Order: sequence, then C-alpha cells, then structure tokens
Amino acid sequence: MKNTFGNNVSITLFGESHGTAVGAVVDGFPAGVKVNEEFIAHQLDLRRPFGKISTSRQETDKFEILSGVFEGKTTGTPICIIIPNENTQSKEYSKTYGKARPGHADYTAFCKYNGCEDYRGGGHFSGRITAGLVAAGAIAIDLLSQKGIEIGTHISKCAGVEDSKFTDFENDINILSNKKIPVLNEEKSVEIIKNIEKIAEEGDSVGGILETAVIGLPVGVGEPWFDSVESVLSHALFAIPAVKGVEFGAGFSCADMLGSQMNDNFVLEDNKIITKTNNNGGINGGITNGMPVVFRCAVKPTPSISKEQETVDFINNENTSLSVKGRHDPCIVHRARVVVDSIAALVLCDLLSQKFGTDWLGEV
Amino acid sequence: MKNTFGNNVSITLFGESHGTAVGAVVDGFPAGVKVNEEFIAHQLDLRRPFGKISTSRQETDKFEILSGVFEGKTTGTPICIIIPNENTQSKEYSKTYGKARPGHADYTAFCKYNGCEDYRGGGHFSGRITAGLVAAGAIAIDLLSQKGIEIGTHISKCAGVEDSKFTDFENDINILSNKKIPVLNEEKSVEIIKNIEKIAEEGDSVGGILETAVIGLPVGVGEPWFDSVESVLSHALFAIPAVKGVEFGAGFSCADMLGSQMNDNFVLEDNKIITKTNNNGGINGGITNGMPVVFRCAVKPTPSISKEQETVDFINNENTSLSVKGRHDPCIVHRARVVVDSIAALVLCDLLSQKFGTDWLGEV
Amino acid sequence: MKNTFGNNVSITLFGESHGTAVGAVVDGFPAGVKVNEEFIAHQLDLRRPFGKISTSRQETDKFEILSGVFEGKTTGTPICIIIPNENTQSKEYSKTYGKARPGHADYTAFCKYNGCEDYRGGGHFSGRITAGLVAAGAIAIDLLSQKGIEIGTHISKCAGVEDSKFTDFENDINILSNKKIPVLNEEKSVEIIKNIEKIAEEGDSVGGILETAVIGLPVGVGEPWFDSVESVLSHALFAIPAVKGVEFGAGFSCADMLGSQMNDNFVLEDNKIITKTNNNGGINGGITNGMPVVFRCAVKPTPSISKEQETVDFINNENTSLSVKGRHDPCIVHRARVVVDSIAALVLCDLLSQKFGTDWLGEV
Amino acid sequence: MKNTFGNNVSITLFGESHGTAVGAVVDGFPAGVKVNEEFIAHQLDLRRPFGKISTSRQETDKFEILSGVFEGKTTGTPICIIIPNENTQSKEYSKTYGKARPGHADYTAFCKYNGCEDYRGGGHFSGRITAGLVAAGAIAIDLLSQKGIEIGTHISKCAGVEDSKFTDFENDINILSNKKIPVLNEEKSVEIIKNIEKIAEEGDSVGGILETAVIGLPVGVGEPWFDSVESVLSHALFAIPAVKGVEFGAGFSCADMLGSQMNDNFVLEDNKIITKTNNNGGINGGITNGMPVVFRCAVKPTPSISKEQETVDFINNENTSLSVKGRHDPCIVHRARVVVDSIAALVLCDLLSQKFGTDWLGEV
Repeated sequence: MKNTFGNNVSITLFGESHGTAVGAVVDGFPAGVKVNEEFIAHQLDLRRPFGKISTSRQETDKFEILSGVFEGKTTGTPICIIIPNENTQSKEYSKTYGKARPGHADYTAFCKYNGCEDYRGGGHFSGRITAGLVAAGAIAIDLLSQKGIEIGTHISKCAGVEDSKFTDFENDINILSNKKIPVLNEEKSVEIIKNIEKIAEEGDSVGGILETAVIGLPVGVGEPWFDSVESVLSHALFAIPAVKGVEFGAGFSCADMLGSQMNDNFVLEDNKIITKTNNNGGINGGITNGMPVVFRCAVKPTPSISKEQETVDFINNENTSLSVKGRHDPCIVHRARVVVDSIAALVLCDLLSQKFGTDWLGEV
Repeated sequence: MKNTFGNNVSITLFGESHGTAVGAVVDGFPAGVKVNEEFIAHQLDLRRPFGKISTSRQETDKFEILSGVFEGKTTGTPICIIIPNENTQSKEYSKTYGKARPGHADYTAFCKYNGCEDYRGGGHFSGRITAGLVAAGAIAIDLLSQKGIEIGTHISKCAGVEDSKFTDFENDINILSNKKIPVLNEEKSVEIIKNIEKIAEEGDSVGGILETAVIGLPVGVGEPWFDSVESVLSHALFAIPAVKGVEFGAGFSCADMLGSQMNDNFVLEDNKIITKTNNNGGINGGITNGMPVVFRCAVKPTPSISKEQETVDFINNENTSLSVKGRHDPCIVHRARVVVDSIAALVLCDLLSQKFGTDWLGEV
Repeated sequence: MKNTFGNNVSITLFGESHGTAVGAVVDGFPAGVKVNEEFIAHQLDLRRPFGKISTSRQETDKFEILSGVFEGKTTGTPICIIIPNENTQSKEYSKTYGKARPGHADYTAFCKYNGCEDYRGGGHFSGRITAGLVAAGAIAIDLLSQKGIEIGTHISKCAGVEDSKFTDFENDINILSNKKIPVLNEEKSVEIIKNIEKIAEEGDSVGGILETAVIGLPVGVGEPWFDSVESVLSHALFAIPAVKGVEFGAGFSCADMLGSQMNDNFVLEDNKIITKTNNNGGINGGITNGMPVVFRCAVKPTPSISKEQETVDFINNENTSLSVKGRHDPCIVHRARVVVDSIAALVLCDLLSQKFGTDWLGEV
Repeated sequence: MKNTFGNNVSITLFGESHGTAVGAVVDGFPAGVKVNEEFIAHQLDLRRPFGKISTSRQETDKFEILSGVFEGKTTGTPICIIIPNENTQSKEYSKTYGKARPGHADYTAFCKYNGCEDYRGGGHFSGRITAGLVAAGAIAIDLLSQKGIEIGTHISKCAGVEDSKFTDFENDINILSNKKIPVLNEEKSVEIIKNIEKIAEEGDSVGGILETAVIGLPVGVGEPWFDSVESVLSHALFAIPAVKGVEFGAGFSCADMLGSQMNDNFVLEDNKIITKTNNNGGINGGITNGMPVVFRCAVKPTPSISKEQETVDFINNENTSLSVKGRHDPCIVHRARVVVDSIAALVLCDLLSQKFGTDWLGEV
C-alpha cells in the first residue's frame, strides 16, 4: 500500500509540506508501552535544520498525539501523531509552478496527479513528511531499547569526508544518539560542516552515505524470500526520497570478493555462535544470525540548489531555466539519520511481532 | 507476506531444493495474454547451469502449468507453474547436517524453524526456488514486451572484469536477451569465463554486479513513499538470496556528487520532456519520469566453496571445519540475470495494473 | 491489517471516544476529485444523534481535513480527516471501570490490552470512531455518484416495524439520502420513533436490519474467492461493532428455496442482459452481474441500557451488577445507515480501482 | 488479494474444475507440526460426493504435498498441496458455452475475463477449488486441536428439516467430525437425505444453513475494526461461492431483541469469567471473550439443475433456454461443512499467530 507499510506493526504517513499538518498513524503497536514525549521531541530535534548547513525554514515541530496513548502509555490501538506546519512561505512556489525543479518530483507528480498535486514546497513529496515518521519511530526505538535492541547510524561519508568505522557497537551507538552531526570520529564533524558550508556558498548541495548498525536482535528474525530482513528494510528505506542505494554488510564491495573472503566463518565463543567477520551484515538467507545488522544508505545531494539549472516549463511546454530560491538545505545527510533509525525501528518491531507475537513485544 | 509479493499482480513461491517440485503462483495477471511456452523454456534455460562455470547438477527444468492457462491464453485466474526436481543427490547433505556452511542459511534456518527445516541442498533457501520465479516472470516479460516495455540486464562487473555501459538501450536489451553470459562487450564474456574457471579451480567462488535497464515505461508509474518504484523493486530484488546491495541511477556514487552534478536537467526534445542525464535512474520522487529505469544489484560470491572453512557444528555445539562438497557454482552472477529480469517484470506489471487497471494491462 | 482496509483505495481509522480526536486516512483516492465539504457535513449530520431516540451527547462534528486536498480538490495523496471530540464526560467511566458492561468490549479490551486500554466511553471500540469513516466515506460516495453509481440504505426492520421494499431503486435511493429516519414508507418512520421512545422509557434498547442497494455498477467488478464482492463488503461491514449478520440477495432465506426458485434467470431486454429476479443480490461467483447489489446488515440493540444487569467486576474479580448511566442511544440503527453507505462506497472505489485503475477512477 | 488470504498465516488457491490440478499454498504455518496425511484424506473424503444426493463425478482426491513438509513435519516454509483432476468430462461444457447457467458465474466470468475464462465445469469458480482449501485446512484443524481448540459444524437446516442445537459443545463437535451428513440429531439425517432425493428426482436442488462452533479459544483474539473476528471469518466464508449470508451468535434475530435480551451478562463461575447467554457468539468488540465462537452460513441451492430454465446466450446475444446436463449435486450443504471448518481453522491460526507469534503457534 502506498503510504502504509508493515504487517503486524504498520505505519501510515500523510501530509504535505505546506498543508495544515503532517503526521503518521502507527497500528499494531503493543499496549502498555510508556510513551516518552521528551524522547519524541529529542528525535524530532535531531531531524530539524541545524546551523548554516540547513534550510532557514524553522519549524518548532510541536507534535500532538491524537490517539492511542492513555495515561502516558500506549493503548494497543492506533497511535496518530500530527505535527502542524507553521513556518510556510507558499507564495514562492506558485510563482514558479510549471518549471520542473531538476531532481525533484515536480514533473512526475504533475503527470501522475494530472496537475492536481499540492506543489507547494514539494507537497507530499517533501522531506517534511518524514517528521511524522520520526515521531512515530521514536516510540519504536524506545520500545526496542527496552528489549535490549539498539539502533545507531553515523555519517559514513559526506562532502568528501570519511568517518571512522564502527568498533565498539554498543558504545558507538550510545554516543551517536545525541549528536547533531552523527560521526564516530568527532573531528570529522568540523570538517564536514566546513565543507558543506563552502558548497552552500557556491549555491550547490552535497550527498553522502549513512551507515547503520542494529545490535541485540535475536537469531531467527525475518523470513526467506519476500520478507527477508533486507527486503523489508530496503523497501522502507527507499521510501526516503533522497535514498538511491541500500546495501547490507559488504554490500557492493562483495563484487570484488572471493567466496572465501566474503563468507563469514562461524565460531563458538563463550558458548555463543558468532561469525568472525560480518560481510553478510548479520543476515543469512534473509534471517538474522545474531551478529549486528549493518547496512548503508546512499543519500543524494539535495536537489534544491540556487545555482541556475536548465529545465522545462511543463505548463507552457517550453525550455527554460531555474534557480531554486525558497529555503533549502545544502545537505540533508545528517538530518536523514534519524529517519533511517526510525524506519529501521518500525520495521524491526513488525518482524519481531510476527515471530513472537504482539503480546510478547509489549512485555517490557 | 513471506513468500507472496505484489498487490494487484502478485507472486507466491514454494518448494525446496530437494523436494518434489519448486513452483510459483501468479495471481491478478490479466486474461487473454498468449502464453509462449517456448519463451518460458528459453528463460529457464538462461537460468540453468552453463559449462564449467556452473554446478554439475543438471535439471531439465521441464515446467508444468497446472492452472490459469486455457487454450494457450491466460484465463485471468491464478497461474500455477511447477518445475519438478529430478537430479537430486540428498545424501551428501544429511551427512554434514549441523555443520553450518558459512554464508548460507543453515544456521539461521535451524534457529528459525527449530531444526525442522528441510536442510537438503539449502531447502527453501536454495537458488533453485528462483526457477519458479523465472517461469512466472517469463509471462510477465512477454506481456510487457507486447506493451512496448523491455527489460535487459548485463553483467556490469564480474571476476574482476568490467563490461561496457548501456549506450543504445533498445538494441542492447535486444542483444542481451539471448546471451548465456550477458555482456554488452562480447569480448568480456571470454575473459569473465576464464577468470571464473581459474577461481573455480582454486575451490573458490566470485561475485559481481548486474545492471538492469527498463525502457518504454510511461511517466507516472509508482507511488510516493512506501510504493516508490525503488521501494518495491528493491524489496523484490533483495528476496534473491545472493543480492546484498541495490542502487538506482548514480546510486552510491551520488555520495561524491554535488547537486548540480546529480540533478538531471529537463529538456524538451521533439516535444517530449526528457532529462539530459539519468543519475536518478528514471525515477523522481519514487515515480517514473519516462527515462530508462536503471538499477544495479550486488551479487555476492556463491557461499558454497570447496576450500576448507572454519565453522560450528550447531547440533554438537562445537567448533569444526568444513569443505562444501556437493555440486555448486563458482559464480551465479550470469544465472541471476534472468531472475532479476523476472522480478522486475512482475513488479512492474503490478505497478502498471494499479495505475491503469487489470483490464488495461491485458489489452495487447 | 487491524485498522486499515483496502488495496488500491484504503482507509485507516484512529481515535478514541474521549480522546483528542477521531479520524481517518484515505489513501489511493484519485487526484482531481472535487471535495464537497457541505456533503461531508451532511453525512456527518445523518450520523449524529437525533431527538429523543438518541444519546444526549451532542458533538458538533466539526471536521478538519489535514491533508490530501488542495484548492478544493483531492491531490491523489493521503487524505487525513479529523473530528475533534468536544462533549466528553469521562468521569462517569472511571468510576465504574472494572464492571464489564454486558455486550460491550470492556472485558475483551481489558484482556487484550492488559488493562492499558482507554476505557472511557468505550475508547477505540466506541461507535464514535465511525465519524471518521463517515467523513471519509462521503468523498467516496460523492465520487461514485459522479460516475453514475448510487448507494442507498433503508431501515428494513426496527423496533417491530417493517418498512416497504425497494421498488424504484433510483428514486428510492434519492429520497433516502436526506432522511434522518431512512424508511421507504414514510409512515413507518413515526411508528419506529414511537416504539423506540417507549423502549427507551423502559431503560432498554432495540436493534434492527438495514438493507442497502447499489446501482450503476458495471458488470465484472470483484474477484473470485477471497476478493469476492461479498467477501470484501462483509469484511468491512462486520467492522461496525453492532453488526452481527450480513446477507446478500435472498440471504438466509435461500435455505428454504429450491434451485429453480433461487436461480436468477437471465433475459435479454433492450439488448441488455439482466436477470428476472435478483436472489443473488447482483453478484454471481463473487462478481457483479449488472443488477443492483443488495445486502442486509443485522444491527444489534445498543448494549448500553439503564436497566440493571448482572455482570463481573474484572478488577476485583467478583460478581456484581450494573446500570449503565452515561448518555446512550436506545437505538442506533438509523445512525448506522450512513456508516454502511460509507463503507460500501470505500470498498467499491477499491474494487473499481483494481479493475479499471486509479487513473480511470479519477476521471469525472 | 484475490486468491490469497491471511497475514501471518496465509492461503493461496489455484486451479480449475477441468484443469490439470487444483491446489493451495499455505504460508506462515509454523515449523515442526506433524502432518497427518490420513486426516487430510479423511477431510477430503468428507468433502467428496456421497450417495444419490451428490454428483456422480467421482474424484479419488489423491493429494500430493509438493513442498513444506519434511520427514513428516512442517518445515515452516510454504506448503503446496495439489489434487490432480481425473474424472473430467469437458465436452458437455463446450457444447453449451455461451448459454449462461442461471445462478452460476458463467456470464460474469465471461465479462470479467473477456471470454478467455476456462468455462469447463465452472473453471476457477467451481466448488472443486475447495478441495485444495480442505487439504490445507486439515493441517490447520489438526494443529488447533493439539492446542485445545476444536471446530465443529452441523447442518442447522436443510431441505425443510431442522437439526437440534448444540448442547454439549465438546461432545457434539467430536461426534460431528466423522459424519457424512453432519447433524446433531441423527434421525434428521435420514429425513434430510430423503427430502434431497425427492427434490433431485424433480430435477431441482436445495440449500440450507450450516452452524459452526469453535471452542477453546483464549480470550483476546482478534482486533477492533477491520480485523474483528467477524470481519476476517466472514471475509473468508463468503469466498465459498454458495454462501449468501453469515451471522454470529443471535445474528439476524437480534433485530427482534431488546438490549436486555441480547446482552450477555457476565458471571464469575469457578473463578472463570463466562457469559450466561451467548447471543454475541463469543465475540465482543471483534475480540473473543472465551465463550464458544458460534456462527451460521446460508448455503444457497446448487445452481445446476436439470429443470429447464430461461436464459441468455451471451455469444449469440439471444434469449434461449437451458437444462443443465453434466453431473451435479442436488445439495452441497453437507459437503460444504468441511470447507467451513477448514476456513475457520486457517483464519484462527492467522489471528492466533498475530497475537502470540508464529513460534508459539508451533509449540505443540
């Protein structure tokens, strides 16, 4: 289904960038889970624009839980969270309607919806819609954490800067959870900001790679074939408009490896079966093997740039050019991090619920 | 759902490597489409082992259509195709049961199914299950072709050899359709085979990258968010057990690009809106923009290698070592090609059916 | 999925009786359909309590469209409509928590949600949740009407009074659309009200039967087996908490009929194939045959009655008795009518969309 | 999805009456459940024609399990069962193609599938397809039974004869499981057969009502709204082509009841909460309350009758008449019983799996 994902635990998204509100409905979430509104606010804060390397559109992101929470705990029935839009400047957009912003969904939305799309600020295609996802995801992240499952994402690469690799997963994930620029090597943060600022000054934007690790998952989660952990995670991750690639474990580098290098040998350590390497990213045959689930998302450069670009006016059917004014981010890699975490958490709640049941999921 | 994928047009897979038969059920396929049994056989043939670079297990892959086809045409009701297993040598497997083959699903299946899994030849996790997918996909490929939509996949990289890039999509796709080693630069085929044979002699295996192009798709196919073309294609592609990465257009390389490089400028040519570059792989905001849909899959080296590997015996709970005997492929990249094409065709039939209706899909 | 129904066109419900708001998200609805807010208000008005035969809880039912509508027309992306709760008197409920109201979901919700359910006014199990459904359904009813498909429901039987049968479908449906007590024979309306009032005075409640007709559907809508028109309609209709029976055409009376009586003979009239009788309710093999689709829902008496009833206090684990105070309806049959129409409209939009495509559905 | 139903545990049907085979795929069934092939054969036997009151088409119903069972136990991966068609006499049907058999899907299938449907013996619309469902359902019935959940169905009414009501559920269900004519009052069996035979002699057919009870279900199974126990059961039950009505507990008779009569008062007995009556059929708010789940299905008279009927030849577009020759049943009520049981078992496995998890479901 278009804006709904998940089986036992599902999420439905709605809203437009310049509409009344964006939001999400989470269904199938277990009853009795404490809802930490501060943590939701914290997660929304991680998604918000930050300093000069982000858009100047500032939303307070005050969220409102319309349903599904009673006396501070989940009721087991649908949780609807909305985040009203406040700081919208829609005029800018109506003036340029018809001029397809390259890399954006302006033209495809026009074709798909026969010119009835809400084009203001990208409408339903805007990254703004992820605010609902992040609010919903916060509840899932919180629940998983109480079950010993932790998720962390760092900027593996951005604006020409490469971060260190995960070494101590538990500690690394913990440290990342409060960083606005989520890097493992803190020095890289300064470098990344500097480079983005420089690119922003040139009216350009830049992309990057996010790397995520999930620890604490039991063995045996996921399904063969169409509900493989890779399948459902990638399905949800590619919903993020900027994501153009998803890989697990060694990912694309496996193309240059031999079987003897790629295979992760099993070994019994302290009476626990682990693998010596983790090129399969914690997943064998679509099913978790107890090792950290590790994946990477390629995040493309923000398509909104102030540099002049050639394009087509699809209303007047003529070639033209465009400099995207509005307010936009020169980079969204750091902001996308919490969206990735949220998606991963929701997907994993669903897979765990299928295996162990909704009742089990709520036992915290 | 675990072994079922798709909404309007869906596929369900079943079978085990050494069971009676593998097969697939396609539901929601339109009525009145001619079923070309020769083409199904042709596609199954492309999936079959080939020469010294493949397993010596030889299946005739005689398929049988149990339902959904009447007087040579689809009836509109579920098409069940089975492919009996013939050349099975199961004894080899029971002897080593408990010794987890690294890179395989032996251990995760054991944990997930409490030791009740059919372990022979990888059981339900075997690539053998893709035979049903290929047979079903052949019907979808055939239908799309009659609607002017063509799919082609080549080996972008394998065993250290890089193929040329797509230049003339229509012609390239046409040429690829009959090649056992699907490369655009025919000379590379010899090189690839030679390298694989060498690796095979050393008891090892090798992976690669498959690149796929789909041409002829109308603008406006796909949905925002969870049914983006990227989401549903990646979901289905990651069902292939060997796939560890999926990227669209520029994919992971977008991390090193600026917005001004990544954005695909629109231009009006011969009264048709196209993009000058195709870094977004024919997809904006999850929806087709009329350019070729281009994606790549990372295929890991076959985990079955005869080289000795350390592992764990999960029955006796002890460290041990293993040399995978059986019959196995030193490389499956070329064989996986037709699986990728099949999956893409089935997914696209589904998306087209959602937009235009089942009735339209059947008008050929 | 629990609170989501539909494939191409889907609806998701959320909210609790005494929470902030109830609402619905409609996804997959076509773009470009004019949204008639007056009609939505009209439909909500039909659902609202009426005179002495209804609860004294009066909600203004001011709805707010949060997304999916732009410049008065649908955008093709999710439509979220909320209806804030205003007139809530929750204290009454906390006092009696634990005393399971017979016929209600108090006890089952307590067991299912481990005592974390929002029990106030029935929480998520309250008929109040249908307000969101009615608002969403209004848009679907409006769209179908523009495509020549009309839906009408009358009270077939209530409080011992039997209404006339449909005779002139088009005219009957038209007349019903504005009636607060939807009967075909207007005289019956007075009788029904009188009887309900009498029952109410005795602190009791009463049920009834609603009969629905849908005209203008093309032949060939629906699917064999699990997406038969009967299957999907009944699935959605049984979501209404008070519905305990659903039948199509002759329904349960077919048990007393011979095949020669039940079979609907076909006849060619004015070059159109129709049936002489309509015992199959316009559906053969799960698929519409062009005749009016006719079905009936059994609506049970409102379980909230002020008469004293024996019950169990599941908190204190003891037998007790209860007289439901609060504000409640002695009869909801007339109010449920518009819920049935809404559900039918949403389900039919989905089935039509599967056959003809989302694009076709939006062509009005 | 058209021919697939269920979330965690799903079933997919395929096949045509005169095709190669009919069958079913069950997915999501837990691993490690013993598969009792004799019980499957027994259930198929209950579905088979019986004596003079059934069609003379005799199928041996030899089933073959193609996948999902290994060493006598389920593997946890898809179970595909096929039942080859043997005793087909297709010629009869091609001669009369175009003459729509009243009450059958001939005309609607022709319209839906553009004349490409397999019309022989009703094709995919034939009751023959339920053989696959029964084979699959047998495994589910067996599993539930091992978990203390028993399902039994009797003929509540048929051919003018009314059976007794359930009194001792456990004993009644046990007795019914081996009866070809499933009645609680054995004397009624003779009467029913006699009446059907008489109707058959006149070239006519007759319908009836099946009543089902499920005991042993825990409290708290099912969901509010769209996955209410009533919703999902009715969805699946209406897939049976002959079913035209489904009701739970008091069902349609609730229209004539007062709230004080319909409400089931709770009472604590032996420290267990039960209800004094069961007018709600064991379901409150869509969720099981621990009482027997009781429902009834209206089964229409078999549409195939040898009496001459008026109809339309939709190929030649003219009024005509028809006497259905072929081989057909004057009554299918008794044969439909095991289909109802099978559907109920599969649906309940799914609901239980959602609540308690796949792993729990397999613990027997």
